[in-house]
Formats: sequence, structure tokens, C-alpha cells
Amino acid sequence: MRIELINTGSELLLGFTVNTHLNYIARKLGEIGLRLERQTTIGDDRSEMRAAITEALRRCDVLIITGGLGPTSDDFTRAVVAELLGRKLIRDGAIATHIAERLRKRGIHLPESIYVQALVPKGAKVLPNHNGTAPGLAVEHNSKLVVLLPGPTRELKPMFEEFVLPMLRQRCGVTAKFDCRTFKVVGLPESAVEEKVAPALADMRDVELGYCARPGEVEVRIISNLKSSADSAEKQIRAALGDHLFGTGEEQLEEVVVRELIKTRKTIVTAESCTGGMIANRITNVSGSSEVFLNGWVTYSNDAKMKQLGVRAESLKQFGAVSEEVACEMAKNARARSGADYAVSATGIAGPTGGTPGKPVGLVFIGMATPQRTVVQRHTLVFDRETFKFFVSQYALDMVRRELLAAKLG
Amino acid sequence: MRIELINTGSELLLGFTVNTHLNYIARKLGEIGLRLERQTTIGDDRSEMRAAITEALRRCDVLIITGGLGPTSDDFTRAVVAELLGRKLIRDGAIATHIAERLRKRGIHLPESIYVQALVPKGAKVLPNHNGTAPGLAVEHNSKLVVLLPGPTRELKPMFEEFVLPMLRQRCGVTAKFDCRTFKVVGLPESAVEEKVAPALADMRDVELGYCARPGEVEVRIISNLKSSADSAEKQIRAALGDHLFGTGEEQLEEVVVRELIKTRKTIVTAESCTGGMIANRITNVSGSSEVFLNGWVTYSNDAKMKQLGVRAESLKQFGAVSEEVACEMAKNARARSGADYAVSATGIAGPTGGTPGKPVGLVFIGMATPQRTVVQRHTLVFDRETFKFFVSQYALDMVRRELLAAKLG
Repeated sequence: MRIELINTGSELLLGFTVNTHLNYIARKLGEIGLRLERQTTIGDDRSEMRAAITEALRRCDVLIITGGLGPTSDDFTRAVVAELLGRKLIRDGAIATHIAERLRKRGIHLPESIYVQALVPKGAKVLPNHNGTAPGLAVEHNSKLVVLLPGPTRELKPMFEEFVLPMLRQRCGVTAKFDCRTFKVVGLPESAVEEKVAPALADMRDVELGYCARPGEVEVRIISNLKSSADSAEKQIRAALGDHLFGTGEEQLEEVVVRELIKTRKTIVTAESCTGGMIANRITNVSGSSEVFLNGWVTYSNDAKMKQLGVRAESLKQFGAVSEEVACEMAKNARARSGADYAVSATGIAGPTGGTPGKPVGLVFIGMATPQRTVVQRHTLVFDRETFKFFVSQYALDMVRRELLAAKLG
Repeated sequence: MRIELINTGSELLLGFTVNTHLNYIARKLGEIGLRLERQTTIGDDRSEMRAAITEALRRCDVLIITGGLGPTSDDFTRAVVAELLGRKLIRDGAIATHIAERLRKRGIHLPESIYVQALVPKGAKVLPNHNGTAPGLAVEHNSKLVVLLPGPTRELKPMFEEFVLPMLRQRCGVTAKFDCRTFKVVGLPESAVEEKVAPALADMRDVELGYCARPGEVEVRIISNLKSSADSAEKQIRAALGDHLFGTGEEQLEEVVVRELIKTRKTIVTAESCTGGMIANRITNVSGSSEVFLNGWVTYSNDAKMKQLGVRAESLKQFGAVSEEVACEMAKNARARSGADYAVSATGIAGPTGGTPGKPVGLVFIGMATPQRTVVQRHTLVFDRETFKFFVSQYALDMVRRELLAAKLG
């Protein structure tokens, strides 16, 4: 079964938006053993769309098209597909009601044009949109399947998982044609990860091994047609990486930390300077974090460090805001003032300005206070501002993860 | 002149790598007034590559192909293109010397297979690679131009700028053929934006109009071949959108807010519950924010709201944490405790759990305290957790932006 993907949207071909749909859909297909044979990007142009869809339908069995289902004049995927497949567009009452209901709930009034989204090519299956107004559509045509998905990621992803994957699984009768597993590593650069992993898997001819370096973490990927080979490769990888391995699949470090805190009924607070709230923001991205996250301080100014967190004026004067002492006081005081089990702190120079010869851009002190002790790590992380913040938050979260792991192992 | 791009590499179709080449090349072409009409991604598969290149050459005048120029068994772009264009591959002595020289300098020995990179289709122009061993290639064929570029970004980018752009500029005799401008809107859904903008531009036949809905904002894009048309369209758009327009190009709302705060020498603090630090995090993503951002509180628990921000126990008891009263106290107290000019607050139910019939998931109160007054907005934002947080941060930042704008206009 040949599967192709067409992503529509002029912003993609103008270079304004990175095509993350391709990645997402390719990964999800891979999980059920299916692969994309080709992906095409086109702009919001009717004749280009007609040509690209016609050509793709000549080649493939399943065609997935994203974008162009919205209410504005440059959204015409629905109309073009209906035209090419010779289907009339019929207004679907249930969709119209769903749209009206969503607008009512949010208390907003929109022009009548919004109801173009209630039009359905005759015979198409409607894929409900729980996160927006435009439903997805699936049309069977000459034993080919054409699936239309809305462009916004938060609408596309749940719809793909709830409706499209089961449909493809059933259609292809696949279980898993290949077994693809991802292991996530923190605290080691890519080459060090390879140095540990590659020798352990050197003899496994039927396992394809890949690495991907991301900001603050490295992914190790294995693909195999045999479950037993994947199992034994996984065992080797886990042994080789030890506690550098923090998760699998798409797991985020903050999810692992929140999960372990919930399990052990411990609480945490954050005291941030240079990360500006990113650590708290990442923790509170995890559903259930309110069970363990009490509060956070973002003490950006020296005044706030003293007033809100009780950092001593003498420490700021003698050592400077970016210092081991201040990171230590921030973590210790945050823990004491909140009554939490753990506190993390970060103070550093995100840049691009603010560096001095003694304290260059990228210098950061990351603190952790626990019931037993307060520790501070010193790093120099020379990146753009947002990447710097992410790296620091990664180190801070990893300190807590390792602390929880050590407590677990006794 | 029709330009197409083919990106090769199985990692792209497996979803392991985001295609940033597309963005880079599209933007660079845009800078000299050229556009991509189509982009295709294929895996490392000879017959798929043959088909995709053949089809693209039927449609376009310039074909750019990236990847597959390396020395390993899955690199065969060079060979496939030579075969399709009926050109012999000839070993180029200068390239072979360049490769040998690079290896000598780095002190590494590689298998003889590395010299496959010195093969050139007869008549092709060699594009030197200053950052790797594989040169790029440009072949003129039946008045079409085929350009092959190496996959690694650090090799592709300088080569594209040094050789490919000048070649295309000369070929097309272009200065800037189109003028592309983006306007960013907050506080209006996509269809409402169109309702305002479309009638104003109805008569402008030579201006292409596009919309892109992103979480919490909408982009309006105009493209025109005439600067004067773009200017007059921009004037119409600005008039139609009024204060809903917050920026242009890639400007972020937090950048606009920080810039205006710096200009007016005002300071800000944040008091966040449901956003968990995201507002502070966005503000501190902006370089220079330390001039205006004093500090933030992330008071997630009720206890923290009382202890750190002085929210009254009676307010929490009588109205609940998610209420207009608590949002109001959070903003007012944060402003008073910090001495900042402005304070924003947010308290709501991010979900997916925690909703009740009276206070459903998505309900949020967003407060702002200024020297003159304290105001609270109520919204219901039914999204996944991270999108919810982003929307709330967007509304909060927009309240400050409008306040600063009103102050400016007197």
C-alpha cells in the first residue's frame, strides 16, 4: 500500500512555517509499521493543487492532504477534492450545529462564511474536530482513500490519532511491519552517546541504529523487523546508557519528573532568574502537576531576589547575582518559604548582552535544595537566548530526576 | 520562471528530521523576489528519485535537489541525475585534490569510496564546498537548470548563498519581483480578520491576499509585484485592522510589549496561576527584558496565592481560586508588592481535569493592574493544556499592549 502526503499552505513554500505535520504524520505511521513514499508541498493555488492531487492519485493508494479546510478565501482543499472526485458538496447539519455550539460556548459571533466548513463531499466520512470548527474528511474513491485534515496542529494531531490511524490500520491489516523505538538521553553529547551505544550493538545486523541530537538531549533510535531483535537491542542500549537514559518515545523530561514526584508524593518549587519562568512553565505543562508543584518565583531583578526570596544583599554585593552563593540561597530560601520538598534555582547570563570578562555570556549556576542538602552546578552554555534557557531548564529538571532516582534506589 | 525543490533523505520521510532546507531556500529565494511553486520529499530510493526528478523536470525551469551527494551506499543523486540527463560521469581532478587535502588537514583516512564525490556529470558546473568534501553541481539541460546541493546544512547554506543565488539572479534578471509583507493580528479569529480585510482590498487585483491562523493570532499576508500596490494594500490593511494589528513580519507579541515598555520606561510584573510561568517566560525571551521585567510569581496552590501574593482567604473561600476577585487581587497585590507600573495575572482551569459544571475546563480570568485601575477579562478557552496556556498569555500580553497604546495616544 503506497501512502503519500500533500501539505498545503503558501506559508510553507514562502519559508515562514516549518512543516512539522510531515514529521508528526511520518512518525505516527511508522509506529504502526507504515511508511510515507512521497511528500509534496504546494501553496494556496487552485490549479497547482488540482495538478498535485491528480498526479498523486495516479501513484498512490492512500493520499493524506493537510490544510485549506478553514473559512477564508484561500481555503479550498474541500472544494478542489470534491471537484476532482466528481462529488457534490452537501451541507452537513451536525457539523453546522457543532460549529454554532463552539462559537456559542466561546461567546463569539463570526461571519456566515464559517459555515463553509459544514460542507461535505457526497459520501465522505466526517472526522469530528474536538479542537476546532473544521472537521476532517475521508473519501473512498476507486479503491483509493483520500483523507483531508485541518492545518492547525492542535486540531490535526488528535484527529489523526483518533480516526485516521485506526482507519489505516484496518485498511492495511497491519500489525507492526517494523519495530521502531526511541530512547532519550540527557547529560551526554551525541558522540558520547554513540561511543557508548554503538559497540554494544555492533553485532546486531538486523537492527538499524540512528542518532538525533536535540537541544539538551539526544535520541537513540532502533528499527528492526523482528521484535526479538529490537528487544535485545533495547536491553543493550539500556545497559550502555544507565541513568543517562531518562525516557522513551516522545516523553519529555518534565513529564518524567512530575510523574516521579507524584509517585513519591513529593512537592517542588522553582526560584528562577535567567530562565525567566521556563522551568515552572515546563513543569506546569504536565497534566497533574498541580499535585506536586506549589509555586515559583521569577526573581529577575536584584531587588526581587532580596524582597521576594530573601537573598542577602551582602551575597549579591560580594559575589554578584550570577554566583554559586546566590543560586544556593535562592534554592534554599524557596524551599524554606514554601515548605516544599525540593526547590530548584537558576541564575546566569542568557545574553546576548550582559557578559563581563570574569562572567561571560552563557555562565549559569543551577541550584537544588532537598531535605538533605543544597547543591549547585556551574555550566557555561553558549547558545541563543531561548536555547540557553531550555538547556538550563533541562539541567535543573535532570538534577531533580537524578535525586528522585537515587532516593528510589536507596 | 518556475522553480521546484526536491529534498531527498529517508530520515525526512520517517519523521526523524524536520525539513529546514525548505524554509531556508524558500526565504532566500523570496529575498530576491523568486518563489517556489512546489516542494517534494523523497526517501533514499533510486526509482522514486528517478520518477520524482522526471516529473519535476516536465513542470519546471529550475530544479534544486538537496542531499544524496555523500560517499555512502544510500547517496546516488549524482548518478541518477547524470543518467536522466544522459551525461557521463567524469572524474574531476581538482575536486579529488580538494578532498585529499581536506582529509590530510584533518588527519583522517577514509575508504577510496570517498572519491565518488569527485565525479561530475559532463558539462556540469562545479560549486565548491568550503565546508565539506562533496561539491555542489549545476547542469544546464534543454534550457532548464538542475542544481544539486549537499544535505548537511552547514555545507548547503554557504554554497547556496555564494553560488546558487547569484546564478538565479542572473538567469532571471530579477531584482525583486515580488513584495511580500506579513501583518500580525491578535484578538480576532481568522474569519473576522478576513471580514475586515477582504472588502478593503477587493479591488486590488494585483495583490495576492492570504491568511494563516496560529494559536492566539492570525497572519495576513500580501504579495504583489508592484511596490506601490503593496504600499496601498498595507495602508488599507492597517486602517481595516486598527489596534488589532500588533506587528509585522516575524514580530512576537512579547517583543512588541517589551519594546513599548522600554520606550516608555515602564516596568511590569506577572502573577500567574494557570499559565504556570509562561507569561514571564515569554517576556524574558526578549533580549533587553531585564530593563522592564522586575519579577514574577507563579502561585499555583491556594496556599501560595495567600502566602506569596496576599490573596485573601475569604476571597478564595467565597469565590474560588478561579474567579474575577482572585485575578483582581493577584494583579493588584503583585503591583503593590513589587512597585512595578503594570501587573498581569491569570487564574483558570487549564484542564484536562479540574472542571466543574459552574466552572468548566477552559474558564480563565485575566487581570491587569495599572497606576489607574485594575481590570479583569473573562474567557473560556477550550484547548489542550499548552495551547490554553499560550492563549491566556496572549490575552494578558495584549491587555498590556493596548494599555500602552492608549497611553501613547493620550
